[in-house]
Amino acid sequence: MGHLADTPEPPYVAVVFTSIASADRAEYGRTADRMIELAAEQPGFLGVESAGEGGEQGAMSITVSYWESDEAVVAWRSHAEHAIARETGRERWYDRYELRVARVERAYGWVSTD
Amino acid sequence: MGHLADTPEPPYVAVVFTSIASADRAEYGRTADRMIELAAEQPGFLGVESAGEGGEQGAMSITVSYWESDEAVVAWRSHAEHAIARETGRERWYDRYELRVARVERAYGWVSTD
Repeated sequence: MGHLADTPEPPYVAVVFTSIASADRAEYGRTADRMIELAAEQPGFLGVESAGEGGEQGAMSITVSYWESDEAVVAWRSHAEHAIARETGRERWYDRYELRVARVERAYGWVSTD
Repeated sequence: MGHLADTPEPPYVAVVFTSIASADRAEYGRTADRMIELAAEQPGFLGVESAGEGGEQGAMSITVSYWESDEAVVAWRSHAEHAIARETGRERWYDRYELRVARVERAYGWVSTD
């Protein structure tokens, strides 16, 4: 079950991580959960949204994390445990990925009133 | 099975659409496919990535579309068939969504050589 991030008014920074799963999924879920837990402890973290994790080989997953500033993104990138997880991801869990760092300029939310 | 978007060097625009599915999923898949097909025909379209579609109520899905310019995003927003699909989405398919328009400033890709 999902939970959308309650981000503030723009501007802020979005890190869009899109990936294609490899055949090896061992330990992936545990590490992904740990990375979200660890990211949430970092200065400047605003929230995270993730979809499609846990798919089989060839499936796409997308994780978007939100940050107050570019400095916060760079600091998280330098976190030692995060660096190890990235390395393991390249060795084992992904066939391909793209990471895009973007500045959110405007946002619109909608909630059902049913 | 997923396919990552082959986007050009930044800068370009990302539209990040994150949503929580409602109980009513009828016709959702067909309309979602049609919107991707239609978006791909618009001027300035660079690619799209999507994960988590087809989930049950409460599941998160994320679709990120990429565009050459803000003008292209605004034009796609004004497309009549897209406007009808958005309206139907609010009436039927979503419990909540967030749409964020962001300027991609840098990007890193990685492909397994295994």
